[in-house]
Amino acid sequence: MSAEDRLRHLLNRLEAGEVTTDQVMHELRHLPAMNLGHSVVDTHRPMRCGVAEIIYCQSKTAEQVADIIEAMSAAGQNVLGTRVPPEMAAALVERFPALEHSPMARTVHLRVHGVPEKTGTVAVICAGTSDLPVAEEAMVTLRALGNRVETACDVGVAGIHRLLERRDLLARARVIIVVAGMEGALASVVGGLVSAPVIAVPTSIGYGASFGGLAALLAMLNSCAAGVAVVNIDNGVGAAVLANAINAL
Amino acid sequence: MSAEDRLRHLLNRLEAGEVTTDQVMHELRHLPAMNLGHSVVDTHRPMRCGVAEIIYCQSKTAEQVADIIEAMSAAGQNVLGTRVPPEMAAALVERFPALEHSPMARTVHLRVHGVPEKTGTVAVICAGTSDLPVAEEAMVTLRALGNRVETACDVGVAGIHRLLERRDLLARARVIIVVAGMEGALASVVGGLVSAPVIAVPTSIGYGASFGGLAALLAMLNSCAAGVAVVNIDNGVGAAVLANAINAL
Amino acid sequence: MSAEDRLRHLLNRLEAGEVTTDQVMHELRHLPAMNLGHSVVDTHRPMRCGVAEIIYCQSKTAEQVADIIEAMSAAGQNVLGTRVPPEMAAALVERFPALEHSPMARTVHLRVHGVPEKTGTVAVICAGTSDLPVAEEAMVTLRALGNRVETACDVGVAGIHRLLERRDLLARARVIIVVAGMEGALASVVGGLVSAPVIAVPTSIGYGASFGGLAALLAMLNSCAAGVAVVNIDNGVGAAVLANAINAL
Amino acid sequence: MSAEDRLRHLLNRLEAGEVTTDQVMHELRHLPAMNLGHSVVDTHRPMRCGVAEIIYCQSKTAEQVADIIEAMSAAGQNVLGTRVPPEMAAALVERFPALEHSPMARTVHLRVHGVPEKTGTVAVICAGTSDLPVAEEAMVTLRALGNRVETACDVGVAGIHRLLERRDLLARARVIIVVAGMEGALASVVGGLVSAPVIAVPTSIGYGASFGGLAALLAMLNSCAAGVAVVNIDNGVGAAVLANAINAL
Amino acid sequence: MSAEDRLRHLLNRLEAGEVTTDQVMHELRHLPAMNLGHSVVDTHRPMRCGVAEIIYCQSKTAEQVADIIEAMSAAGQNVLGTRVPPEMAAALVERFPALEHSPMARTVHLRVHGVPEKTGTVAVICAGTSDLPVAEEAMVTLRALGNRVETACDVGVAGIHRLLERRDLLARARVIIVVAGMEGALASVVGGLVSAPVIAVPTSIGYGASFGGLAALLAMLNSCAAGVAVVNIDNGVGAAVLANAINAL
Amino acid sequence: MSAEDRLRHLLNRLEAGEVTTDQVMHELRHLPAMNLGHSVVDTHRPMRCGVAEIIYCQSKTAEQVADIIEAMSAAGQNVLGTRVPPEMAAALVERFPALEHSPMARTVHLRVHGVPEKTGTVAVICAGTSDLPVAEEAMVTLRALGNRVETACDVGVAGIHRLLERRDLLARARVIIVVAGMEGALASVVGGLVSAPVIAVPTSIGYGASFGGLAALLAMLNSCAAGVAVVNIDNGVGAAVLANAINAL
Amino acid sequence: MSAEDRLRHLLNRLEAGEVTTDQVMHELRHLPAMNLGHSVVDTHRPMRCGVAEIIYCQSKTAEQVADIIEAMSAAGQNVLGTRVPPEMAAALVERFPALEHSPMARTVHLRVHGVPEKTGTVAVICAGTSDLPVAEEAMVTLRALGNRVETACDVGVAGIHRLLERRDLLARARVIIVVAGMEGALASVVGGLVSAPVIAVPTSIGYGASFGGLAALLAMLNSCAAGVAVVNIDNGVGAAVLANAINAL
Amino acid sequence: MSAEDRLRHLLNRLEAGEVTTDQVMHELRHLPAMNLGHSVVDTHRPMRCGVAEIIYCQSKTAEQVADIIEAMSAAGQNVLGTRVPPEMAAALVERFPALEHSPMARTVHLRVHGVPEKTGTVAVICAGTSDLPVAEEAMVTLRALGNRVETACDVGVAGIHRLLERRDLLARARVIIVVAGMEGALASVVGGLVSAPVIAVPTSIGYGASFGGLAALLAMLNSCAAGVAVVNIDNGVGAAVLANAINAL
Repeated sequence: MSAEDRLRHLLNRLEAGEVTTDQVMHELRHLPAMNLGHSVVDTHRPMRCGVAEIIYCQSKTAEQVADIIEAMSAAGQNVLGTRVPPEMAAALVERFPALEHSPMARTVHLRVHGVPEKTGTVAVICAGTSDLPVAEEAMVTLRALGNRVETACDVGVAGIHRLLERRDLLARARVIIVVAGMEGALASVVGGLVSAPVIAVPTSIGYGASFGGLAALLAMLNSCAAGVAVVNIDNGVGAAVLANAINAL
Repeated sequence: MSAEDRLRHLLNRLEAGEVTTDQVMHELRHLPAMNLGHSVVDTHRPMRCGVAEIIYCQSKTAEQVADIIEAMSAAGQNVLGTRVPPEMAAALVERFPALEHSPMARTVHLRVHGVPEKTGTVAVICAGTSDLPVAEEAMVTLRALGNRVETACDVGVAGIHRLLERRDLLARARVIIVVAGMEGALASVVGGLVSAPVIAVPTSIGYGASFGGLAALLAMLNSCAAGVAVVNIDNGVGAAVLANAINAL
Repeated sequence: MSAEDRLRHLLNRLEAGEVTTDQVMHELRHLPAMNLGHSVVDTHRPMRCGVAEIIYCQSKTAEQVADIIEAMSAAGQNVLGTRVPPEMAAALVERFPALEHSPMARTVHLRVHGVPEKTGTVAVICAGTSDLPVAEEAMVTLRALGNRVETACDVGVAGIHRLLERRDLLARARVIIVVAGMEGALASVVGGLVSAPVIAVPTSIGYGASFGGLAALLAMLNSCAAGVAVVNIDNGVGAAVLANAINAL
Repeated sequence: MSAEDRLRHLLNRLEAGEVTTDQVMHELRHLPAMNLGHSVVDTHRPMRCGVAEIIYCQSKTAEQVADIIEAMSAAGQNVLGTRVPPEMAAALVERFPALEHSPMARTVHLRVHGVPEKTGTVAVICAGTSDLPVAEEAMVTLRALGNRVETACDVGVAGIHRLLERRDLLARARVIIVVAGMEGALASVVGGLVSAPVIAVPTSIGYGASFGGLAALLAMLNSCAAGVAVVNIDNGVGAAVLANAINAL
Repeated sequence: MSAEDRLRHLLNRLEAGEVTTDQVMHELRHLPAMNLGHSVVDTHRPMRCGVAEIIYCQSKTAEQVADIIEAMSAAGQNVLGTRVPPEMAAALVERFPALEHSPMARTVHLRVHGVPEKTGTVAVICAGTSDLPVAEEAMVTLRALGNRVETACDVGVAGIHRLLERRDLLARARVIIVVAGMEGALASVVGGLVSAPVIAVPTSIGYGASFGGLAALLAMLNSCAAGVAVVNIDNGVGAAVLANAINAL
Repeated sequence: MSAEDRLRHLLNRLEAGEVTTDQVMHELRHLPAMNLGHSVVDTHRPMRCGVAEIIYCQSKTAEQVADIIEAMSAAGQNVLGTRVPPEMAAALVERFPALEHSPMARTVHLRVHGVPEKTGTVAVICAGTSDLPVAEEAMVTLRALGNRVETACDVGVAGIHRLLERRDLLARARVIIVVAGMEGALASVVGGLVSAPVIAVPTSIGYGASFGGLAALLAMLNSCAAGVAVVNIDNGVGAAVLANAINAL
Repeated sequence: MSAEDRLRHLLNRLEAGEVTTDQVMHELRHLPAMNLGHSVVDTHRPMRCGVAEIIYCQSKTAEQVADIIEAMSAAGQNVLGTRVPPEMAAALVERFPALEHSPMARTVHLRVHGVPEKTGTVAVICAGTSDLPVAEEAMVTLRALGNRVETACDVGVAGIHRLLERRDLLARARVIIVVAGMEGALASVVGGLVSAPVIAVPTSIGYGASFGGLAALLAMLNSCAAGVAVVNIDNGVGAAVLANAINAL
Repeated sequence: MSAEDRLRHLLNRLEAGEVTTDQVMHELRHLPAMNLGHSVVDTHRPMRCGVAEIIYCQSKTAEQVADIIEAMSAAGQNVLGTRVPPEMAAALVERFPALEHSPMARTVHLRVHGVPEKTGTVAVICAGTSDLPVAEEAMVTLRALGNRVETACDVGVAGIHRLLERRDLLARARVIIVVAGMEGALASVVGGLVSAPVIAVPTSIGYGASFGGLAALLAMLNSCAAGVAVVNIDNGVGAAVLANAINAL
């Protein structure tokens, strides 16, 4: 049972006279956030934002992440961790055997309760083979949040026919995520082909004057196709959370 | 009658045997783009992207813009021009008296055919009084594309209660556009309060180390609230086109 | 008679015994550069580089430019000036009535001797109407150097079919110059469609995070289409000189 | 006995006729700085600035740092070292067993003389778990300089209620240090809630367009809450020294 | 009577039974913010932050600023506007004759109620004559908030004796604001001479690789004198608000 | 037999009536791209661009690269891989014994079919010994594509006579590639000496304010010798592909 | 009589018993700096640094500059002002008829006492006609400080023979100042030809990716000719002051 | 016997009739540069620039460096290598036992012939202990080129008295090199105290917004003390070569 369901249940019981206001107040006081000392788990967030907190693991210790997983799962929330270094993933999987680890996406995922699948499809379009880890992070996140995902990989603009052949996929998607490094031109071309919302993810793939993804980021922000929005460099999870919010409408 | 309607009409007549394939082919051949020499008006775009081309007027001459307005309206398309300098606006209004000019938004708008209003509301949240022109550009665009718009202005995070008092507006919006300059923190706070998709527009308001909006842009790209996407600095129209695409779902 | 022709003529006469070595030496001593005090006109350059010096007028005074025109035409060289401010152009045309002024390209051109036309065609592909002045600078330069030029304007990637319709032009060009601002994606798409050399010119068209053309510049440098080379922002003349050198092979 | 106390004592003895001017002069001549060859320990600083020199250890050798510790403790000064790499810390603790090493804060501290505790409280507010090392550096420094410290961790703006619940802490602090990475928005929100001085510390936490803390730095410099000052990225110790100077008033 | 005083008065009357809870509630509901459409004046701020909102006038219209002055003075608040362009200042002074305009500081100030003078002195140290407008903005703000101000001008580090001669001023100041452009070295030198808190204001004075004040900003952030905090480039008012908060302790 | 040859052959047989249109259609449908899941090999490219895809190996796994080599060689295409890390090269050579590995150039090359040698020479001019790996990448690529290459190494402008002694090489080259790090001045000097097209490759050699090759990149983009074009930092392969396209004219 | 002479005179008289120590002390107390309120003229500087203060006029008012000229000339010092806007120059010349105004150099110069001419020559080498104002600022300054100056203009590296022809000038100079914009390559070439100290001045001449002189600045800092030092962009006066210090040895 | 001496000797013998012109021509032909394939040793440089080539070892292989040492020493030139990684130094010392390796300066030095000591002193002033390696590189270079060196270390501006105590050193130096990281303010303070030429070396010491030495670099370029010139970040050897050229006057 998710935290939100638990709250609804509690309020229903109050309405039914099964619990007292004081009991609910006590419960509520503990709900919004669980303080672990180093972290304050925002258990209210599913109610507020539709999605539980996602743990950015890279600059945390394995112990801190394990504490947060413990707290969230105890609160009945599904857990998703991103940017999990390999050794941390190994330690966490040992402690939480039900944790699914995706090495390419660098994610861990603990499914505490089911998530209903949405009807619309999210397309994840990926410019090159090297962009796959970021695309994979987006796809793991999307699936964890109950989205159907379809993907087209290595369809960068230097061979435009590879993209044009996938226009059916573009046409049937409700939301499109475009993942591209180097000059990031794929976002503009896709944005000019569809009426669905397009979310662009610049990646740090490239060298020299790519400056760690800056070239793709600037290109996507300056897209001549109106209506393309951009998330941070390599931020597959951010694009997925936004795509999920749109797909949930 | 819009270009898209004209096409549907033609195909219906073909289906009904009223025109021949050759006649349709001929018409189609002229549809995708009208070549004005200096510009190629992409009349296919409403069919492809759901929205007609929007004219970025700043670096064009008044004559070039007038030619494009002529061509688009002749093709039965509504026309929206952005970043219209005051003198250009005056010249255009004189030539096209039906053109609506919004001085604060720096837009011109020619309504050739009606646009059905969508049921969802788009909220435009604006951090400071100085961000109003960008917010206004978004609002004019949204309304031109058939969206209901609600707005809250001057609710920046230095007085967080001003924003919290407008949580009803945030809650009832289907899509939210956040317009903010300076440190752009409003996007993160709004993103942490809602489940609706949030589109952030950094503005060039600020001085010194704002570097023409770079500070707000970077802040919004690094938002700790997952799922906030960003458009270019001062790009109210881009945010509006994306919000319209989402609201159209 | 051009400076190069004059030199050849002189050497031929020497071979024929019509002049002495000393006379040639004297002439040669005056050839390499004419010192105007503020400027040293490099009259050797046509022999060395195939093209006479081109005057970058923006940060010079009208008097300095006039002196250089005087010296170059006296040396039998054609003269091309770029980035000519309107008032300077007016002053120069008054002094040199044979000077052709192209206001859109911001060039002045004085044809002292004929230039044989090359057989190959240079295509100038331009992403948007706003990029026209830079494209025009390239075209004026190309024609001044004896190239046939064909052009396709406003074929940016947000409406990819507008470009694909011009594949015949791309196919028949010996060299292609791509002029684009904003995200500069056109260079990659063109580069992926052709076997001809592609020279990309980023323009300063765009706003916000375009940073004066930086976004397009970085995008073009990071093009996923191998073999695209880039010149400075708004540097139509530089692209033309390189295209001319290639077309002259 | 601290260096300042030693000086006062000396001057008192001079006043009392117990030492001669020459003896004081001799002592004074040795006071201002002790020259170790590679370093000149500024032993005058406690008198001038209220705080002894703090050793930035990262780019020094363990031997150099040990020499400085030796010299400072011999001069009767407390010693604080920051950015101590783990191996250097181990070597130093072996040589100076009284040295306290805080691994999370990456500090070493040698208490040679007591420091009276100030009455006011300094609050250290920390946006995320990943920002803890920088916050910890600030807290170790503050305590070493005789400040009472209270802290609230993981109260970033994406869950604004987590911060609002800690308004009591904000209200009772005499000085507030805000430590935040990513978009650094916490500084503006805190700055808008309190009348106490706010010192913002951007951290290098984040990825992609965070550019090593640049995003948070620029955001904090552009804070819409007037009166927020900023120190260098990850500079917990600098914020603490300033907070101590304020708390000492 | 200031807004805060009005509130206290109201609550005292409630305590005394002179008004009812409902009446106070009604009044309170209007207090936190007055909505002017384009602006929401945060009248709560004096109570929360100790200082009323300061109007950043540069990117507002004269009408908007006049509305805000009207609203704030009606609420019994003193009004300070910064970055007031000359023509706007003229218009405002005509409408509000009691407004004091300082052309060098580019401020307008309306004193609605008295402000008690604090006992401590704030020193404003200014590196060069060209930095005066920023220093002046700080001084006008400091005086408006009830601080005694002393100043030393043109004491940059290229003539270090000019600064050393003013050590008495540095010694007696409770807080020090250092205003410097170019390489901004003055902040480090002052920071190494005093125990008082130092707030550094980089200015945009300089040329070439000063990059609009970036050189001074970076230098000040990297000060080798621990405990120097920095505000935005040219942000005299921000430094003054922080100095006032410190001086108020 | 190359992919292009195979296609020509097929069409010849169709012309000759040996195969049916349907058979050709079926073959063609499989030609443009081979989908490997993670990669879509663009087998059409030799026909379109004159050169097969070149594999950028750095951010791919050895398995992915091996799959692509398999697919391309199966399609009758020569294979070139760049930026091959040493371990990946070892693994690939083990699997494809015919693969030539150049450790200095960091390339692997599989020659499936012969390539006719072009008549013109490409000169690769290299400023310093440290720039050799980038120059070598260009030379391996040029030779793989059938170009004759001549080279002059360590002829940087600090000893201008070293370059001037090689003017014969510059004079006889049909295309010139200039590889230089640090301040990249060699491109301008060479550009001023020749009439052949010059392609400049900035390298990341240098330190401090070289900023990873940015200094050389900007210098080359701003070359005072008109007609020098630039590719990405360290992009030897890109320069070679463009030089090959030019040499093929 | 210069300030330094006045001081020497005073001390000589003290030595001779003509004045008392107290009288000298009184005089000395007034010498080091004259406080004009807005400016503190550092009259000690000629003694300390060999050169009087030079007034950077751009961000000062004409009144402030006039006050400083008054004070310096009263103190017997020669006055040099740089970056003087035309209107300010006119006002100053009207007030100080002896002031020499150089419009190209944008300087004003008041010769109060003679300056002995040094024996060595300073060469000012200038890449292009557009760099002349910066070179002129250096030359005016050099001459004002008593240096013989020789110059070679428009000898940029795109026509390397123009420079090589001036090797005699390079050989006979005691110090060389190289002024160049665009890619700034001239500094490296000159640095490789001579044994004299070379001071490089990047100029803001160029466009696009010159970024206001950044390209030339970075190039010069990364010069492959060891021993070239760089001053700020367009800082002709700074180069001249350093060259003067070297020439004075 | 140095290369220069060898040449003089040869020419003397020619003058004396001991060798023929042809013999000298032959010798001269081999002098200017020795081509090692990967490197062209510029053996002419001592005659041209007064200093032999200095080998930048960081991006070369040990084999390449050994070849260059071999060639230079065979040509009778002293050899200096900088940025030598520890393992390369070990390998070189094994091969050339006479090579002196300075681990802190990261240099190797081979003295083939003596160098006469100059009379003037070069002062190397170093802001902090962490800047020592760069200062040491300058000092090793200076001594190798025959300069007397004096040094003051750890005299940064946060304790200005430490510098002022060393004014005697500053006064007696003929040239001053200032090495400083962080905010680099030391260069301005020293520049304001002396009449000798000052060369500033920014170092990469610092963190956060130091951006690898950029803060110190910009600060030094913007020094308010006229006449300070700057070399690249961490470029101790460059500063030393320039100081040597000045000291040689």
